[in-house]
Amino acid sequence: MPVDKTTQAELMSVAHALADAARPVTLAHFRASGLTADNKDCAGFDPVTVADRDSEQAMRALLAELRPDDGILGEEFGHKTGTSGLTWVLDPIDGTRGYISGTPTWGILIAISDAKGPLFGIIDQPYIQERFVGGFGIASVDGPMGKAILATRPARALSDATVMTTFPEVGADIDRRAFQAVATQAQLTRYGMDCYAYALLAAGQVDLVIEAGLNAYDIQAPIAVIQAAGGIVTDWQGEPAHDGGRVIAAANTQIHAEALAILKGQIDA
Amino acid sequence: MPVDKTTQAELMSVAHALADAARPVTLAHFRASGLTADNKDCAGFDPVTVADRDSEQAMRALLAELRPDDGILGEEFGHKTGTSGLTWVLDPIDGTRGYISGTPTWGILIAISDAKGPLFGIIDQPYIQERFVGGFGIASVDGPMGKAILATRPARALSDATVMTTFPEVGADIDRRAFQAVATQAQLTRYGMDCYAYALLAAGQVDLVIEAGLNAYDIQAPIAVIQAAGGIVTDWQGEPAHDGGRVIAAANTQIHAEALAILKGQIDA
Repeated sequence: MPVDKTTQAELMSVAHALADAARPVTLAHFRASGLTADNKDCAGFDPVTVADRDSEQAMRALLAELRPDDGILGEEFGHKTGTSGLTWVLDPIDGTRGYISGTPTWGILIAISDAKGPLFGIIDQPYIQERFVGGFGIASVDGPMGKAILATRPARALSDATVMTTFPEVGADIDRRAFQAVATQAQLTRYGMDCYAYALLAAGQVDLVIEAGLNAYDIQAPIAVIQAAGGIVTDWQGEPAHDGGRVIAAANTQIHAEALAILKGQIDA
Repeated sequence: MPVDKTTQAELMSVAHALADAARPVTLAHFRASGLTADNKDCAGFDPVTVADRDSEQAMRALLAELRPDDGILGEEFGHKTGTSGLTWVLDPIDGTRGYISGTPTWGILIAISDAKGPLFGIIDQPYIQERFVGGFGIASVDGPMGKAILATRPARALSDATVMTTFPEVGADIDRRAFQAVATQAQLTRYGMDCYAYALLAAGQVDLVIEAGLNAYDIQAPIAVIQAAGGIVTDWQGEPAHDGGRVIAAANTQIHAEALAILKGQIDA
């Protein structure tokens, strides 16, 4: 069932309210000394901070009040089934490693989705006070230089392109090799931007973001923002990426096709 | 000859004036589409933008007016000999690759130095509107969360530490191997922060920044800020780093010694 204009406006208003509620909570602990970091993933280092949990709780409390019939899928507190057919997909702090290192490239990710995927999304960077939004006919950023329309880059060859990922290892060895097969053909490869890389793609600054091992809450908001800005996001088989996994986000269909062919050639080999 | 208090105050005032002049010039082209990027380094990709040149020219024009007897060493327009014994060391946009990718981690670097090295420095991030300063008894940051004192982290083991560098390849193969020898023993390794990594070290957020192939104008301002905040910056032999090259910046003498021993073991092998 399509979402009518009135509901769209309400959902956008609620999404902004969620981001507004999460911002001060995340900043309360940002750059503090002695930040608590649990090790929830025994195989590696995946810190979960007090701020992460508080941020999601603040958003869930607001949703209980404003949209009690919607489902919620959040990083910290799991899945709450709803009855409206709509689900809020929340990452209270995407890029917790960046967060505990003081970088300004983590973000609050908020998407409102139906069964087919995200309809509207927000990538919010509280420290910079910058918010990227996309969906329901809107694609815009509001930040230090004011408000602007988001539009992805026009097509250019991979040899003239900039590609981003957060960690050089990307995921497993095969993921790293596939990424490097693309990166070696690109003009410039940059690391370490967390969800901010997707925001930069939507803002027309880079051509490709390629990552692996993502969860739904890592990618649904970026999908909404990037699609609204004219870009395309799929998995490495060219299928929908809203459940996470291996993701390629591209500024346009041409560079998506060029990079996807390389990725598929690596993982199918 | 030591710089007296009156001169210190004047130099600090001029340094801030330079950063104030450079900020709008750098932002005039930031995130614009179709940014011009020359390829000045034929061996690789080292874009020099219009903003880079304009930013240095703005600072040189101000110095010609305010401090005509000082020398200037700048990335874009080389060395101007002075008569005062003091030299302004300027990188108008450190992290041009980050700049043309839209990231908020490039910066304006300004140092005032004598023959022994930097006395006072500024790391300025115009987009975030954040300025890290250090020297003449001051170590502070002024940014989105207001003004705060800079202080590096207390000692912790490398196995509990966060280490940063901008590119995974670091420099030549031997540099990469030496960096990786340290990084594999650290708790967390992060990439892609350009000069912002040094600011985060001064702000007590990370323990080590290790890079190679730097120029004097890349490191003199970070040295001043980090030393003022309680940290230590040397080359990989433990010698002064103000001429650039291989650099290790550390939060304290203990982790500096632990990481330096590993680096030396690799490059002396």
